[in-house]
Amino acid sequence: MFTLTKDTAVPLTEQIVRHFAQRIDEGLLLPGAKLPSVRQLAARLEVSVHTVLVALDRLAGQGYVASRPGAGYFVLRPSGRAAEGPSPAPPAPATTTTGFTHSALSADATLLQAGSGYLPRHWYEDAIAPATLARSLRESAEAAVLPPVQGLPALRAQLAERLARRQIPATAAHLVTSFGASQALQLAARVLAGPGDVVLVDDPGYFLLHSQLAALGLRVVGVPRDEQGPELQALAQLAEEYRPRAFFTQTLLHNPTGASTAPARSHRILNLAEAFDFMLVEDDVYGDLAGDAGVRLAQIDGLRRVIYISSFNKVLSPSLRVGYLAAPPALAERLVELKLMDVLSGSTLEEALVAEVLRSGRYHRHVLRLRERLARARAAAIAALQRCGLRFDADAAGAEGVFLWAALPPGVEAPALVEDARAAGIVIAGGHMFSRRGAGLDRLRINAAWATDARLLKFLQEWLARAAPQSP
Amino acid sequence: MFTLTKDTAVPLTEQIVRHFAQRIDEGLLLPGAKLPSVRQLAARLEVSVHTVLVALDRLAGQGYVASRPGAGYFVLRPSGRAAEGPSPAPPAPATTTTGFTHSALSADATLLQAGSGYLPRHWYEDAIAPATLARSLRESAEAAVLPPVQGLPALRAQLAERLARRQIPATAAHLVTSFGASQALQLAARVLAGPGDVVLVDDPGYFLLHSQLAALGLRVVGVPRDEQGPELQALAQLAEEYRPRAFFTQTLLHNPTGASTAPARSHRILNLAEAFDFMLVEDDVYGDLAGDAGVRLAQIDGLRRVIYISSFNKVLSPSLRVGYLAAPPALAERLVELKLMDVLSGSTLEEALVAEVLRSGRYHRHVLRLRERLARARAAAIAALQRCGLRFDADAAGAEGVFLWAALPPGVEAPALVEDARAAGIVIAGGHMFSRRGAGLDRLRINAAWATDARLLKFLQEWLARAAPQSP
Repeated sequence: MFTLTKDTAVPLTEQIVRHFAQRIDEGLLLPGAKLPSVRQLAARLEVSVHTVLVALDRLAGQGYVASRPGAGYFVLRPSGRAAEGPSPAPPAPATTTTGFTHSALSADATLLQAGSGYLPRHWYEDAIAPATLARSLRESAEAAVLPPVQGLPALRAQLAERLARRQIPATAAHLVTSFGASQALQLAARVLAGPGDVVLVDDPGYFLLHSQLAALGLRVVGVPRDEQGPELQALAQLAEEYRPRAFFTQTLLHNPTGASTAPARSHRILNLAEAFDFMLVEDDVYGDLAGDAGVRLAQIDGLRRVIYISSFNKVLSPSLRVGYLAAPPALAERLVELKLMDVLSGSTLEEALVAEVLRSGRYHRHVLRLRERLARARAAAIAALQRCGLRFDADAAGAEGVFLWAALPPGVEAPALVEDARAAGIVIAGGHMFSRRGAGLDRLRINAAWATDARLLKFLQEWLARAAPQSP
Repeated sequence: MFTLTKDTAVPLTEQIVRHFAQRIDEGLLLPGAKLPSVRQLAARLEVSVHTVLVALDRLAGQGYVASRPGAGYFVLRPSGRAAEGPSPAPPAPATTTTGFTHSALSADATLLQAGSGYLPRHWYEDAIAPATLARSLRESAEAAVLPPVQGLPALRAQLAERLARRQIPATAAHLVTSFGASQALQLAARVLAGPGDVVLVDDPGYFLLHSQLAALGLRVVGVPRDEQGPELQALAQLAEEYRPRAFFTQTLLHNPTGASTAPARSHRILNLAEAFDFMLVEDDVYGDLAGDAGVRLAQIDGLRRVIYISSFNKVLSPSLRVGYLAAPPALAERLVELKLMDVLSGSTLEEALVAEVLRSGRYHRHVLRLRERLARARAAAIAALQRCGLRFDADAAGAEGVFLWAALPPGVEAPALVEDARAAGIVIAGGHMFSRRGAGLDRLRINAAWATDARLLKFLQEWLARAAPQSP
C-alpha cells in the first residue's frame, strides 16, 4: 500500500485519486479488479472514511472505477476512458440481489413487479378495518412510551395463543417481536453464530438471507432441495464436513420453489440437528398461506432446537414491519439484548395494530380469502406461462402460495432474460439469485398473482420465441 | 479450557455443569468472575450454543452463576450455596444501563417514569389527528409494497424541506430513514468505524449510545463537557492521542445535561474534525424542543463532515419508530446498503403518517405547544426539587427541553438512591450511567414533566433527609 504525504499542498483526496488513476492507466490495476474496502483504505492510509469516499467518488466520476452497492468499488477501465469525461455510476445490474431488491422496492409505479414476493395492492385492502386502526392508535397512545424491548405484551399474548393452536409451545416469554422477518433472521444468526462460523441455508433459498448471513461474516453453505424438502444425505454430509452452527430453512411454501417440506423429512432433519448439534432457524413468512395440512419444524420439535420466525408483512400488509421470533427462553433473552442494542424497541402503533387484527378474527378471514384467490391465480398463471414456453414441475398445479418456479426452455439462461425484462419495465427474479451453488440458471421465480399480466406474457412470448426458436 | 468426552453416557450439558460447579466449589473461579461468552464456550468446547445455554441455565438454577443481561454470566458464590437449592436469577440492577432501560420501557403502569426521556402520555395526544391517520393508512395501502430501502419518497421530500429551512443542505438523496434514532446511530457507527477503532462520545452522554458503540467492538472514549458544550482542549488532546474515526455529540438540549453547545464552540469542533480528519455524528432527537436560536453542527458544516440524525419518537409520538439520517451522498449510499441487510426496509404506514403530519403543519403547532408546556414544567420542577435538597446549575432555569441535571447534596451518591427509588416504584436515571470516566455519581437526570409528582418529591425529601442530614 502506498503512503500519503501529509506536508504537501496536494490535498489527501487528490493524492489518492492520482495514485489509483495512475495504477489503472498503467495497467497495474486491471478492469474488474476489486479495490480494498473503504474502511480498509481509510485504515491503511490513516485518513477518514470521508476522505476515501470523496476520492473514490472522484475516480468514479472520471470513469476509472464504479461502485456496486453492497460489493464495493471495482476498476472499470484504464486510460483513454478518462478523456471521455465523467459518466454516471452504472446502476447495480437487475440480475444481482441488491439490484433486484432495489428494483423490487422501487417507487417507480410503472414497473411490473412480477418478481415480487408481495401480492397486488387490492388483495390486501380488506385486511385492516379503519375502526381497527383507530382503536390501535388510541391504545398505542395510551401506552405512552415504547413497548418493552421484547415486544408489546398484548401482541405477544395473541401470538402465543396462535402458536399454541398449532401446537408450538411458545408462551409470551419465548416471543420477541422484530421489524419484519429480516431483522428476526439477522438477530437469530447473531445469537447462534459468529464470524467464521458455518451456517447452512436452503439452496435454492431466499437470496437476501444469503447476503445477510454473509455480511455478518458467516460462511454460508447451501443444502440442495428436492420436491420433498432439503436433501437428507446432502444435509448429513455437509453437517459432518462443516459442523455448522445452524440451518436456516423454510418448511412451508419455500421461497423460491413454493414447495413444502414433507413432515417425515422434517422429523429426520431434526434428528440430524440433534446428532450434529446444530440449531434450526425456521422461516415461516408464507406459512399462513398453506393449507392446514402443513407441518412446521417448530411443531414437532417443541421449540428446543428450533428458532421459529414469521411476520405479517407478506400476508396482512406490506405497509407494516411486524415480525417475531419464538425461541427457547435462554435464547429469547439474548435476542432481546441484541435487539435493544440495534433498535432499542419496536413500534407501539404497529404492534398494537397487529394484536387488534388478530384479536378481532379478521386476520383469519383475510387469510382464507387470500388462499382461495391464490389458488385460482396459480391455475390461470400456469396455463398462460406454459403457452409462452415455460415449464413446471408436475405438482406445481396442486401447490399453494405465491411463487411459481418456472423452468426455461433448454439452452436459455435467466440473467439475459431478466436484464431485458428490466429494460422493458418488468421486474422478474432470475433463479440463479437463489443459489449458492451456481444452480437455478434455467429458472425464473414468478409471482402467481402478477403472472397473467398481458405485458409480462407478451414479453415472455416474444423473448422466448427469439431466444429459443426450437421451443414450442 | 477443559475438553468434553463425547463417547460417554454423561450428556454434554451435564459435563459442562459438573466442570463449572466443581471449579466454583473449589474456589478456582471466584464470585464476581465473568465466564467466557456463550459463543466462546460453544466454539471452544465444540458444542452448540443451545448446549451451553442449557448448561448455564442449570448452573444458574443451582445458584452457582447469574446472568446479567447484555453483560454475560458471572460466578455468584461457591459451595454451601448449592445445597440451598435453586434461586431465581436476580434482575439486572436499576443502576446499570440495561436494567434501567428495561425499567424505563416496562409495561408496569405503576412505575413512575421520572427518569424517562419521554413526556407524559397526554402531552402527545393532540399531535396526530385521527383523519391524518386514516389518510396515511389509505396512502400506505396504495403504495402496496415496502418503501424503497432509503425511505418513502414523500417523507424524504418533507424532511429535505424542513432541513432546508434550517439551512442544512440535504436533498432527498442525502436522507435515509431508520427505525428510530437508535438504528440511525448504529448504522452511522458501522459506516464510519470498525472493530478496534476509537470513537469519541459526549461525557456525560446518552448511555445507550455508549453501550451500542461498545457492542460494535468500538473503543469508546468520552469527551468532557462544560456548560458551553464539549471541552475543546480535551477534544484536541483526545483526537491527537486516539486518532478517532468519529465524534458522536448532541448539540442541542444535550442528554443528560439539557445544555446546548454554543455556536462558536461548534465552529471550533468542526475545525478540529478537519484538522484531525474525523467525522461528526450529530444526534438531534431533542432539537425541535429548542428555541429557534439553536445552531446545529450540520448547519454550519453543510453536511460535509457531519452525519445528522434525528427522529420523531421523542417529540411527535413514542408509539412511532421513525428516525432518519442526513449524510453526504456517498455515505448515504452505504447507509442504505447496511440498512438493507439489517431490516430490508422501513414501514410504509409510519413513514406515510409522519410525512402527512409534517405536510399538514400540525407538527409545527404541536412543537410550539410542547415548548411552552415544558418551560412552565421546568420552572415548577426546579423549585420543588430544590426544596427537596437538590441543586441546579445557575442557568438551568433559563434552559429548555426535557432534562434537569440535578446535583445531589455533598457526600450522597446516585446508585444507592436509584436502587431505593426503583424499590419504591420510581424509575430515576443516576448520573453515573452517562459517564465513561466515572463522573456523574453526584447527579440525577430527572424529566421536568414528571418532576412535580408528589410521590417522587416525597421519596426524594425523605431519602435525602436520611442520607444527608447536613443538607438544608
